[in-house]
Amino acid sequence: MNKAKWIWYFGEYEIFHSLQLHSRRTEFGADYPPPWYLPNVYPIIDFCKNVTVDGLTEFSVHLNGIGYVMLDGIRYPSDKVIKCGPGSHTVSVKVMNYRGLPAAFVKGNLIYSDESWTASFAPGTGKSACCKPAYFSENDSVEKFPFSYEKLYPVSVCKTGKGYLYDFGQETFALLNINDAAEGDTVCYGESREEAQATDNPDFRENALVCRTVGKSGKTQLPQTAFRFVHIITKRSSPYDISADCEYIPLSDTGDFSCEKDIADKIFSLSARTFHLNSREFYLDGIKRDRWVWSGDAYQSFMINRYLYSDDEIIKRTILALLGKPPYFQHINTITDYSFFLIISVFDYWSYSGDDEFVRNIFDRLSALYSFCLERTDENGFIVGKNQDWIFIDWADLDKTGPVCAEQILFWKASECMNTLSDKLGIPFKTRTDSAALKNKIDRYYFNKEKGGYIDSFVSGKNKISRQQNIFALLYGFADDDDNKKRSIIDNVILSADVPKITTPYFQFYQLIAMCENGLIKQACELIESYWGGMLRLGATSVWEQFDENDVGTDNYRMYGNAFGKSLCHAWGSGPILVFGKYIAGVRADGNGSRTFTVKPELGVYRTFKATVPVYGGKVTVSKSKDSLTVLTDVSGGTLILKEEKIPIEPGKEYIFSPDQY
Amino acid sequence: MNKAKWIWYFGEYEIFHSLQLHSRRTEFGADYPPPWYLPNVYPIIDFCKNVTVDGLTEFSVHLNGIGYVMLDGIRYPSDKVIKCGPGSHTVSVKVMNYRGLPAAFVKGNLIYSDESWTASFAPGTGKSACCKPAYFSENDSVEKFPFSYEKLYPVSVCKTGKGYLYDFGQETFALLNINDAAEGDTVCYGESREEAQATDNPDFRENALVCRTVGKSGKTQLPQTAFRFVHIITKRSSPYDISADCEYIPLSDTGDFSCEKDIADKIFSLSARTFHLNSREFYLDGIKRDRWVWSGDAYQSFMINRYLYSDDEIIKRTILALLGKPPYFQHINTITDYSFFLIISVFDYWSYSGDDEFVRNIFDRLSALYSFCLERTDENGFIVGKNQDWIFIDWADLDKTGPVCAEQILFWKASECMNTLSDKLGIPFKTRTDSAALKNKIDRYYFNKEKGGYIDSFVSGKNKISRQQNIFALLYGFADDDDNKKRSIIDNVILSADVPKITTPYFQFYQLIAMCENGLIKQACELIESYWGGMLRLGATSVWEQFDENDVGTDNYRMYGNAFGKSLCHAWGSGPILVFGKYIAGVRADGNGSRTFTVKPELGVYRTFKATVPVYGGKVTVSKSKDSLTVLTDVSGGTLILKEEKIPIEPGKEYIFSPDQY
Repeated sequence: MNKAKWIWYFGEYEIFHSLQLHSRRTEFGADYPPPWYLPNVYPIIDFCKNVTVDGLTEFSVHLNGIGYVMLDGIRYPSDKVIKCGPGSHTVSVKVMNYRGLPAAFVKGNLIYSDESWTASFAPGTGKSACCKPAYFSENDSVEKFPFSYEKLYPVSVCKTGKGYLYDFGQETFALLNINDAAEGDTVCYGESREEAQATDNPDFRENALVCRTVGKSGKTQLPQTAFRFVHIITKRSSPYDISADCEYIPLSDTGDFSCEKDIADKIFSLSARTFHLNSREFYLDGIKRDRWVWSGDAYQSFMINRYLYSDDEIIKRTILALLGKPPYFQHINTITDYSFFLIISVFDYWSYSGDDEFVRNIFDRLSALYSFCLERTDENGFIVGKNQDWIFIDWADLDKTGPVCAEQILFWKASECMNTLSDKLGIPFKTRTDSAALKNKIDRYYFNKEKGGYIDSFVSGKNKISRQQNIFALLYGFADDDDNKKRSIIDNVILSADVPKITTPYFQFYQLIAMCENGLIKQACELIESYWGGMLRLGATSVWEQFDENDVGTDNYRMYGNAFGKSLCHAWGSGPILVFGKYIAGVRADGNGSRTFTVKPELGVYRTFKATVPVYGGKVTVSKSKDSLTVLTDVSGGTLILKEEKIPIEPGKEYIFSPDQY
Repeated sequence: MNKAKWIWYFGEYEIFHSLQLHSRRTEFGADYPPPWYLPNVYPIIDFCKNVTVDGLTEFSVHLNGIGYVMLDGIRYPSDKVIKCGPGSHTVSVKVMNYRGLPAAFVKGNLIYSDESWTASFAPGTGKSACCKPAYFSENDSVEKFPFSYEKLYPVSVCKTGKGYLYDFGQETFALLNINDAAEGDTVCYGESREEAQATDNPDFRENALVCRTVGKSGKTQLPQTAFRFVHIITKRSSPYDISADCEYIPLSDTGDFSCEKDIADKIFSLSARTFHLNSREFYLDGIKRDRWVWSGDAYQSFMINRYLYSDDEIIKRTILALLGKPPYFQHINTITDYSFFLIISVFDYWSYSGDDEFVRNIFDRLSALYSFCLERTDENGFIVGKNQDWIFIDWADLDKTGPVCAEQILFWKASECMNTLSDKLGIPFKTRTDSAALKNKIDRYYFNKEKGGYIDSFVSGKNKISRQQNIFALLYGFADDDDNKKRSIIDNVILSADVPKITTPYFQFYQLIAMCENGLIKQACELIESYWGGMLRLGATSVWEQFDENDVGTDNYRMYGNAFGKSLCHAWGSGPILVFGKYIAGVRADGNGSRTFTVKPELGVYRTFKATVPVYGGKVTVSKSKDSLTVLTDVSGGTLILKEEKIPIEPGKEYIFSPDQY
């Protein structure tokens, strides 16, 4: 009886939980749904299976919604035992739910629900039923994400002018339990001590982002919130007895890194903590704010994922949530670049995992999104912003007149991804773009030989050079080696003091990768040690959304015009995990769905280090001591590259090299 | 303060209430959602208005869902008073609801919600906010349709072997109230006495369609059900004290008809009763079964509507519920003909009302539906069934090999409707069909000169002649006068005893109209008197889904393989209302959005009659006594046609004619 799982239609679980997640943000006492379109679930789903049973059997059907069962053409109600004789049978289940997620649970010894059933919402839409994450009991609610919980207690409490301030010691995301709560008391949360105490105007602007009023006395549990500090405003004469239930997904880390520099270890741990806190139903940007799913942020998280715990499920869930379903009325998160990042993310997911089936299941959605993008091209075939499209790229002073170079490079990369997926999987793709022709055109319009880099815009005549498009050109191999564009960009843009610096950790991550890919690994690690190290020195227990070493005191918490607007736990700050694993240990998947990998350690940055990096189906450990280099993996398909030599590495065998060999 | 109304996005109210309505059908103890795709609501809606106020004012926003208010760029929570100084302001409201209908209520003296707000679900989708039906209080629920209720009591009660049988005297649709209910008692409903008593197997097959178990003792109210008889199975020694709350929309009848034949009056009343019982959120097919919204049935109801109470709102609601929104995955109700009927229904609505705005609001949906239909054409450009499409036409033995003639005539009519709407309203229509060319092709392939009519199919080679496509050819003026096709069809098909009879009241209605349009009004009225009169003689209190004068006893209730499967209150049986108004009183709208009308009474069928017929904005009364004809209207735009003479009729003036004048 325990083989049955709740089943639903492909992608609908993610669409439903995305709706749920995006309805949970609150700020300054107001609910704060996102400013973009989200699709709703299909309200009626049919599940079907042909089964052959040997003897008399019975089963019952439980629904998240209303509906009925058909056994060999006869209709039965749900929640009742249905008997079925030996032979071949067609069992189908119809479920309707327009206030939740339509799902079914068929319980029986021989007839039970799992991925072998077919689900459809209209003729011709049949796909294998989905059941991940798995719900095994008819009493489970598929509308509740299966989080794990860990009990936390404050490490200290002190009296304030208004009540009590509790410190949980480090950033967390948890439900708060208060015993003997007094009705009307106010709970103000803070990622910083100061935020929790900024309670002058408890229900509006310029105060702690999240305050909640205790609704009734007695035992109270307040909803999931990001905090380290909790400030309870109360007239009580002694502190409350409080605890927190930290809500998380138990993803176990394969990735690890340590080296002779203590700061690097701490940065790795800080990044991993931050990353776990943002790894939920889907990847969040930050747990305090926005607590939404953003495609650009998620794209970076997908990359980091592969170097920490390498979990396919959270990637697929996030892709499905972001992709939603046609028709597309606007770009993903309203941002042109974010539509392209989503397409690139799918390609990257496939390239690493070789998961053809997932791509087949979403290719129609993906090509609908791509077609939507094509509606946004101008007379030259360049992507432009139309009808409130947000040409974001980065928080930076870019020349966004007319078509912008950075968008065209992403467009090119996305077209390459679509074409490759279509070719490799043999899926027809009607709106294919000639990406080679597009590349030529972008080079012709945007590459400025005099300045040695790509300009932001050719329309304005300003010929402004910014880092952003040049970083993309390096990141995606858009700038070629052969005509020396790559070298030119490194010298004239990346290493130039005249080109304005990157100020966001978001783009810093792209720059770090572009640097590492082009021989600047040492500089990248130095940047990590100073920038991330700077936050650690200020007592950060997770990586901040942004950091400026010149900021003093509470200025560190100010952002978006708000005294405590900054998120102190932002996923995009977890990039060092990837840098250490990909560029120090030098482990990378060969891609194109091959599931093979290459190890090319960087031995000139840290004297000693030990790095473990996930690879498809296993892991690789690369250890460098003062006098040896050791490589060990538990899966086949790896190649070690040492001094240009390619050494196949077998699982379970320790490869030890002496300094003269590397 | 009382000017505020709840607002929502165009069409979403209807989509939500359609979901709600279609989730309510139960049969034999099982929920029974429909076998077709229904779209869900957009979960996030933005409302916006620019207002200028003279002095200080305040307002509050109430949401069906969660969200926030933006006043001049500053975010405020809902349910709180917001103050606003003099000057120009932009007020916007965002509401998210994925478990219900997103809607907003803005309450204030100067700032309040109504149709002057703009609503959108994505950029470029802005439309006037909708607020019909009107909900005037923040405590109203837009998820509850504003029905009226009337208390009903049983007219008799008798003891049965199992409990008590109550008779409410006539068919109704009501909630049932039971005082002192005993937990576990079962209530079996019946449109007939026999159905209510068919309780051998109270929760499955071949018994009363609807049985409900009383959940708890005390005062119980059971949900809306169609019934005349209620059988309570109980061990109680005395009858329960029961009553019913009949649920209805108070639509007041303008249309009326009486004549020298008592049976005709009774048929009109019976039809009107039946029609009212099926006039709800949307037009139902029948109140017991299916209690769903079917496009073909609704199409007939739209026609009847104009001759009874002429209500635009129920037509628009039903169109919006049926039309849903793109993408279209299947035909309306899965039936090819029903997609075309919906397009024709929109044209008819516009033609009668001249309501350009409504058509503008739905034209993108309508043309998406039309495009979907075009995907179903074969190499000749004929409509065929693909991917589980249901080629219904009628419950009849039609030759459905390859493309079917009846579908092509509907296709042609729908293409004419689309082209005319596009031309008249100046809306671009990309997928226009050359309807004249299509007509020629249909004539060439399907008209059989030998047999004098259109054949079902040309593929099979059977050259079978059925009434159905020939009725459509007459109904839509597809068969021309000039080449004598029309006359030929009347003689060789309609009046031929060799062509199988129509057996459904559904198609009987089309045939009645086709007959009346071609000079066979007397025959049509005779048919009405015998067919509908037959049901009356058997004690019908509403018109049945089907009637065969040869059936005896409970055979009258059998249908679809079920002893009591037949609906005894089916909207499509209300056709006599139209026949009397349109062909006896002779009142018809001139159409094409003109709002003018023509009165051409038929004076040869009934010696005396009095008919009142709604026309746009008013009504016309046509009375014929033994020695005079009187015509009176209360609106302008009418023309009386008497002996080929056209007489403009002014409102308020009685036109009296003596027999020599008509």
